[in-house]
Amino acid sequence: MKCKFCNKEAEVTIRYPRMHLCENHFKEYCENRVKNVIDKHRLIEKDEKLLVAVSGGKDSLVLAYILNKLGYEFEGLHIDLGIEDYSEMCKKSSKKIFSEIGLPLHIVKIKKLLGRGIGEVKTRRPVCSYCGLTKRYIMNKFAYDNGFTAVATGHNLDDESAFVFSNILHWNIDYLSKQGPLLEAEDKFVKKIKPLYELRDKEISLYASFAKIEHVTKKCKYARGATSIKYKKFLDILEKDNPGIKLNFIRGFLRNRKIFKKKDFELRECEICRMPSQGKRCAFCRFWRLKEPLMFQ
Amino acid sequence: MKCKFCNKEAEVTIRYPRMHLCENHFKEYCENRVKNVIDKHRLIEKDEKLLVAVSGGKDSLVLAYILNKLGYEFEGLHIDLGIEDYSEMCKKSSKKIFSEIGLPLHIVKIKKLLGRGIGEVKTRRPVCSYCGLTKRYIMNKFAYDNGFTAVATGHNLDDESAFVFSNILHWNIDYLSKQGPLLEAEDKFVKKIKPLYELRDKEISLYASFAKIEHVTKKCKYARGATSIKYKKFLDILEKDNPGIKLNFIRGFLRNRKIFKKKDFELRECEICRMPSQGKRCAFCRFWRLKEPLMFQ
Ligand SMILES: [Zn+2]
Ligand SMILES: [Zn+2]
Ligand SMILES: [Zn+2]
Ligand SMILES: [Zn+2]
Repeated sequence: MKCKFCNKEAEVTIRYPRMHLCENHFKEYCENRVKNVIDKHRLIEKDEKLLVAVSGGKDSLVLAYILNKLGYEFEGLHIDLGIEDYSEMCKKSSKKIFSEIGLPLHIVKIKKLLGRGIGEVKTRRPVCSYCGLTKRYIMNKFAYDNGFTAVATGHNLDDESAFVFSNILHWNIDYLSKQGPLLEAEDKFVKKIKPLYELRDKEISLYASFAKIEHVTKKCKYARGATSIKYKKFLDILEKDNPGIKLNFIRGFLRNRKIFKKKDFELRECEICRMPSQGKRCAFCRFWRLKEPLMFQ
Repeated sequence: MKCKFCNKEAEVTIRYPRMHLCENHFKEYCENRVKNVIDKHRLIEKDEKLLVAVSGGKDSLVLAYILNKLGYEFEGLHIDLGIEDYSEMCKKSSKKIFSEIGLPLHIVKIKKLLGRGIGEVKTRRPVCSYCGLTKRYIMNKFAYDNGFTAVATGHNLDDESAFVFSNILHWNIDYLSKQGPLLEAEDKFVKKIKPLYELRDKEISLYASFAKIEHVTKKCKYARGATSIKYKKFLDILEKDNPGIKLNFIRGFLRNRKIFKKKDFELRECEICRMPSQGKRCAFCRFWRLKEPLMFQ
């Protein structure tokens, strides 16, 4: 089978939109998808000071690689979670790609900053839950403190469609109106963008392997409980029968998400860190029992 | 394993809410579900003149049987679709149950009324599609012409959850705000009710077998293409992992369906039959090329 765009043998078959592609044209296809999402949703403005959050996994490393290839300027942020060997591997992969593309990478070490690594805190809260809270807070505060105007993350089509799908299935719809590839800046929340919004998990894996992007494939040892996996599997079954259903589902969602609009509730300032908070102290300062605001260096 | 409510051996295990039941208590459970839906959604008013549409399949026959057992007064309507032996079997089962419960059953023969049976019309439209149109129209017009104030149909939890699910998945959401166990009367549209809204397909089959309700299990030969089967299967996979998800999904939908509200468009009167219509002639009169309104006897 020949590539749709050249005379080379096709290496990849994409089911929706259906086409056979050689290695180079497959990479181009992925890069175009990212470019299209950025343009269509106006993710990156002209003078954006962009921070790209990289975990060491395939999604965020491919994100950094493609954004660089598309000519965007940015700096990286890697959060070292302090989970033994696993975090070491993640840091190594993140550093490698940034040294290859020649852009600066900031590394924030949770253990150094907060005294304990992820998984070392005595709490009844599931590890994944406070890990997420911690990462989101640090990404935002690091960006805000350092004058970045946008934070890009590696969320992909499978992540996002499973998230929206499971929230509708359980009618947890209060925050769906704000879900999407772009979350505008508000107060001290820096703008968040998801340029991989229309790339499938499998496509990103394949891209990483073609582009020889070393990344951590081992799952975090705390991740096994993630329920999102169930909905991803389910959507995979649907997708098998209806190629394109994930993409069309998530696009239909974006067209219709205004129906999920709920009143915003007011935010005040956390009395510790001065970042936006629902209560007197923000969830981050409460969880980590901070007495002083978190400071980077 | 003993029945939850008596000393008999349990015959059935219900997964959500989890319980083991003997034959009699299982039947009681089903009847209570129907009663609860009728009460919770006020499906049947005090002086309701109720018409129960029966196809000859398990759902509608169980519906008639349970409504009678619960003490409701009603008459039946069976539409003879004119599909050879299949329709003969359907008519026989319908007649049998109505003679057993001692209530009147009206039979409307499509072939006699409209010249051709379902499946005998030359059209590019799928058979299931114009069959549905025809049945819906006849149920409503028969009820309206004869002074019935409500039409009950046998739609069950699997039908309804698959319908809502597939419509959200494809974002065909314009009419979702009107979906539910109760569709109020409007203009010449008689009220429609679905008392089996919270009973599962399997529960109804089991009820039919315990109550010895003879029904047609053969599928209509035109039904093979129905895409709803696909979504029913998917929901079954989900339900296996999350017992109760169908029920909770559909209940969550009912709590939230107002978000799907769209402006009603205006209806006029069909120039042939004087029933509500979007265009000059209603879809039914157009499809069957009627020059006179359909009259029963
Ligand atoms: Zn090529
Ligand atoms: Zn705080
Ligand atoms: Zn019992
Ligand atoms: Zn008409």
